[in-house]
Amino acid sequence: MRFRSAAILLLVSAAASGAGADDPNYTQDGKLKPPADYREWIFLSSSLDMSYRKLGGLMGHSMFDNVFVDPSSYREFVKTGTWPEKTRLVMEVRAATEKGSINEHGRFQSGDSMGLEVHIKDSARFAGGWAFFAFNGSEPAVQIPSGADCYSCHQQHGAVNTTFVQFYPTLLKIATEKKTLSPNYHP
Amino acid sequence: MRFRSAAILLLVSAAASGAGADDPNYTQDGKLKPPADYREWIFLSSSLDMSYRKLGGLMGHSMFDNVFVDPSSYREFVKTGTWPEKTRLVMEVRAATEKGSINEHGRFQSGDSMGLEVHIKDSARFAGGWAFFAFNGSEPAVQIPSGADCYSCHQQHGAVNTTFVQFYPTLLKIATEKKTLSPNYHP
Repeated sequence: MRFRSAAILLLVSAAASGAGADDPNYTQDGKLKPPADYREWIFLSSSLDMSYRKLGGLMGHSMFDNVFVDPSSYREFVKTGTWPEKTRLVMEVRAATEKGSINEHGRFQSGDSMGLEVHIKDSARFAGGWAFFAFNGSEPAVQIPSGADCYSCHQQHGAVNTTFVQFYPTLLKIATEKKTLSPNYHP
Repeated sequence: MRFRSAAILLLVSAAASGAGADDPNYTQDGKLKPPADYREWIFLSSSLDMSYRKLGGLMGHSMFDNVFVDPSSYREFVKTGTWPEKTRLVMEVRAATEKGSINEHGRFQSGDSMGLEVHIKDSARFAGGWAFFAFNGSEPAVQIPSGADCYSCHQQHGAVNTTFVQFYPTLLKIATEKKTLSPNYHP
């Protein structure tokens, strides 16, 4: 009984450390679970209808993106100007509404989340260190294939460690001070 | 000496409880201090160039508002659908930029905070329960006079307890479920 208890303790301990096959972020077949509590994480910034293409246009839709990061990775960034292993950045999409209640101009966020993507740093799992996942509701998601445009674009243009810190003003200030901006980055 | 130590202990204890004249949020002459750590609070929503007036226009400026709430008041709202005493809502203003880095369309947030306002619930201090403060940098601020438009507008149109929960989609859902919406509120 003593040995069995010790073995269980080891298993629990491995799961809690977030390492290897027992990482609670993943299913056993390697899908990423959507983070349940990201609305209580640290907010980095929001944007409206951004597009990196010369020909923009969202087919008449107007949408806000909200970006959050898990609190412990945020604290590490504040200290070091870059991201630790296990960093999870979440982008959430919400409808941009003009007329509602007493509002007459501009846009506010309304309704349920219309989409959720995660950018996760996990060098033990992913070549290049980072992977993207796009979620459909509460279902775990398979990795977006590493040949997709998002990887090369983030690699080429991300201000810090393949992430778009140039669009997160409080972090951009920290990275500038700590001199952790990518040599590829052009303001 | 014993009595003196006990008296000091009482003073420290009153300050720590956040009640009365020793509340750490206020200066001794009743000004509110700007919260130093609000970027690590809970994000409620952001908006772009909102205006409640028929004639809009920000004289060519485009700005995002980000709204945050202190974490313990957020947790209370999640449980009850309304705000406890000492709730602090913060609205931060950031420039909305179109061209920068690889962005071609839409708007992202850039630069330093351009303004900070706090809406605080403290019925022991303020008639009507709530007060507004607008900050200039890190200086403590005097209360915006209770005759200002913001008070009557929030009283009349705020979806929950004089606050604009109608523009915070995750909270609107909670207040709807918990039936804490103001009878004055019209979607």
